[in-house]
Amino acid sequence: MLKTNKDRIEEMVETFSQMGKTDGGGVTRLALSKEDQQARQEVVNRMEAIGAEIKVDDLGNIYATLPGSEDLPAIMAGSHTDSVVRGGNYDGILGVITAMETAERIVEEGIDLRHPYTVAVWTNEEGARFDPALMVSGILTDHFDEEKMKQSTDTEGVTFGEALDASGWKGEKENRFDPEKTRALFELHIEQGPVLEAEGKDIGVVQGVNGMVNYDLTFKGQASHAGTFPMPFRKDALLAAAETITWLHGELDQLDKDLVYTTGRINTYPNVHTIVPDEVRLTFEARHTDPEVLQQVVEVIESLPQEVAKCEASFEKQWGRETVDFDAEVIESIEEATKDLGYSYNEMYSGAGHDAQYIATVAPASMIFIPSKDGLSHNEAEYSTIDECWKGANVLLNAVLSLDKK
Amino acid sequence: MLKTNKDRIEEMVETFSQMGKTDGGGVTRLALSKEDQQARQEVVNRMEAIGAEIKVDDLGNIYATLPGSEDLPAIMAGSHTDSVVRGGNYDGILGVITAMETAERIVEEGIDLRHPYTVAVWTNEEGARFDPALMVSGILTDHFDEEKMKQSTDTEGVTFGEALDASGWKGEKENRFDPEKTRALFELHIEQGPVLEAEGKDIGVVQGVNGMVNYDLTFKGQASHAGTFPMPFRKDALLAAAETITWLHGELDQLDKDLVYTTGRINTYPNVHTIVPDEVRLTFEARHTDPEVLQQVVEVIESLPQEVAKCEASFEKQWGRETVDFDAEVIESIEEATKDLGYSYNEMYSGAGHDAQYIATVAPASMIFIPSKDGLSHNEAEYSTIDECWKGANVLLNAVLSLDKK
Repeated sequence: MLKTNKDRIEEMVETFSQMGKTDGGGVTRLALSKEDQQARQEVVNRMEAIGAEIKVDDLGNIYATLPGSEDLPAIMAGSHTDSVVRGGNYDGILGVITAMETAERIVEEGIDLRHPYTVAVWTNEEGARFDPALMVSGILTDHFDEEKMKQSTDTEGVTFGEALDASGWKGEKENRFDPEKTRALFELHIEQGPVLEAEGKDIGVVQGVNGMVNYDLTFKGQASHAGTFPMPFRKDALLAAAETITWLHGELDQLDKDLVYTTGRINTYPNVHTIVPDEVRLTFEARHTDPEVLQQVVEVIESLPQEVAKCEASFEKQWGRETVDFDAEVIESIEEATKDLGYSYNEMYSGAGHDAQYIATVAPASMIFIPSKDGLSHNEAEYSTIDECWKGANVLLNAVLSLDKK
Repeated sequence: MLKTNKDRIEEMVETFSQMGKTDGGGVTRLALSKEDQQARQEVVNRMEAIGAEIKVDDLGNIYATLPGSEDLPAIMAGSHTDSVVRGGNYDGILGVITAMETAERIVEEGIDLRHPYTVAVWTNEEGARFDPALMVSGILTDHFDEEKMKQSTDTEGVTFGEALDASGWKGEKENRFDPEKTRALFELHIEQGPVLEAEGKDIGVVQGVNGMVNYDLTFKGQASHAGTFPMPFRKDALLAAAETITWLHGELDQLDKDLVYTTGRINTYPNVHTIVPDEVRLTFEARHTDPEVLQQVVEVIESLPQEVAKCEASFEKQWGRETVDFDAEVIESIEEATKDLGYSYNEMYSGAGHDAQYIATVAPASMIFIPSKDGLSHNEAEYSTIDECWKGANVLLNAVLSLDKK
């Protein structure tokens, strides 16, 4: 089996880790920032150096293409160069590095691909500078309104549209990703979870991206003086929230073991030491592959009593997404390459969102996961070994090559 | 029985409600602000008009004294003119109004008191501009360090000492309240709780101020991605906090029925929708008359498991205070006046702090409570009827007169 060049992968990880480097050993490389532009230029330079044709579309997406010998749609691989604030050295960029390494090896080996092979960099995946995440893949696939997205504003008051104009990375609309001209998209990514590491697996063969429901829960009680209100008179919104969180765990833990659900944000008012809280708002989200399990979650949430601890309890459904199933043939190419390389693997769904999930709604796509140390991501301590990165790159290279033959 | 003048009480409530009036019908009258100074001047004008001698001490406390016929220590009554931001028209100021009304009636009736009678206004009771609450009564009774208190700073960066110097209300140190020259201190106040209203009682004969313990609780888990971390891998600090709040209610509700305890503030980190919280900090306070009950509370808190929901749980004891018992003879004068007036009453402890609790540590003192509509205080909607205020004033007047004879 053809392998990638481990040293070059390590050098690339090191090179990109300098672009936006933080004191804590991670990177801050917000979309279209100086640091992100530096990373983009590095991609362009490297791909030009091996003879790839560079195109940039009007949303700043970069496409570096090696020609195919036949008039066929392109096989693509890529991810994003942007990061969150104080993010790590792997999330996003490793998908770009391994896609470039695949191109390097194709050129080095003089492989005559039938399909064109395109390394793709998607703009503003993280949504850390311009909300929301997956912005540009969402525009390309009609999940988001383009004009509205261009008005999304960073903390300095700059819109995404303005940042794009000012960056020099706004190319031609005609260069945009075209599903009709796409054979497949591969995205290699760190798992961002602990499962592969815990189970000692090399590779996650990603079957799709889990569906998700989001609710806001509100508890309304009555503010009162912590010293003068006997307990039976109280309407303590925080007690109502605490009882509900505890109750939800009791109910939801009885559902499928792969269900994940989270209250990440809780806001308490007035949040003063000596005042019984009169209002608590909290977020709730749940993710699972099976829409029936998510429906069971919805039923639990919607069975929330109207009154908890004498407080008025209410829920409001927010956005959701259905499970996206990746393309069977693309998945198969990944699984076969993994097996042929003798690597251990899990078939798994992604709990996190990725550009590939939007691309997958219009073109064949799948993802390759590699282990994340301690499951950490969006964190300066995010880490995967070079061996893990290299194995992932080997799977990508061989999956591309095998799909090219089909 | 001699009665106070209900119309004059109503007029005074109305007059003071204009000083710092808010759109919501309450007042913002922060300590030593322009509005507070206007209220102070109103007290001085009214008391000078009936021939009282005005003294101001170096902490801004006002003493308006009617002479006694014998060389005896003074009977004092008073409270504070300052309020919280968007406070009500009764908290503090009603104790000053009813103390002044008592003076008015003594003068009108030509009553020849044996003891001097002093209307007192204590500076910065609320601590809303300069932390802490009860600042000046705390200085007078050696509970707080004077120099440290003078460095307490408002949101504009002005210290209490500077505000006092600039206000024109800094008098002579020799005028300070002197326990040796004090026969008794009465403080009339709204209950700030729902009990008198709920039980249909006119008056609270206050036996003392409840003791209190304060803890900070911290739960440390691990931040993780809400989509990619299976439930068994999680260390969710918010779940740990929610379980602990629920558990505390279960444990503490088995203790004495008069125990009150509160978590008013909870801070969750990073408090992001899609991240499992890694740290939650919350406040816990409990109040009760009986130190043994508070000790039981301490034992419950200190029996908190070191690990809750796989998170590290810890507690840190903060400040506390012991129950202050008011003076038996002063209490008796209030209770007798209440009975003689034919008013219904509760013997009760105050759950809230008041200047009288510090004064009581060095001189005989007690308090008179009147009902608070819905128990509201520190709130623009704070309300007591003029009848309720008037009944309280009648109790104060007659308690002063009866104690004067003893």
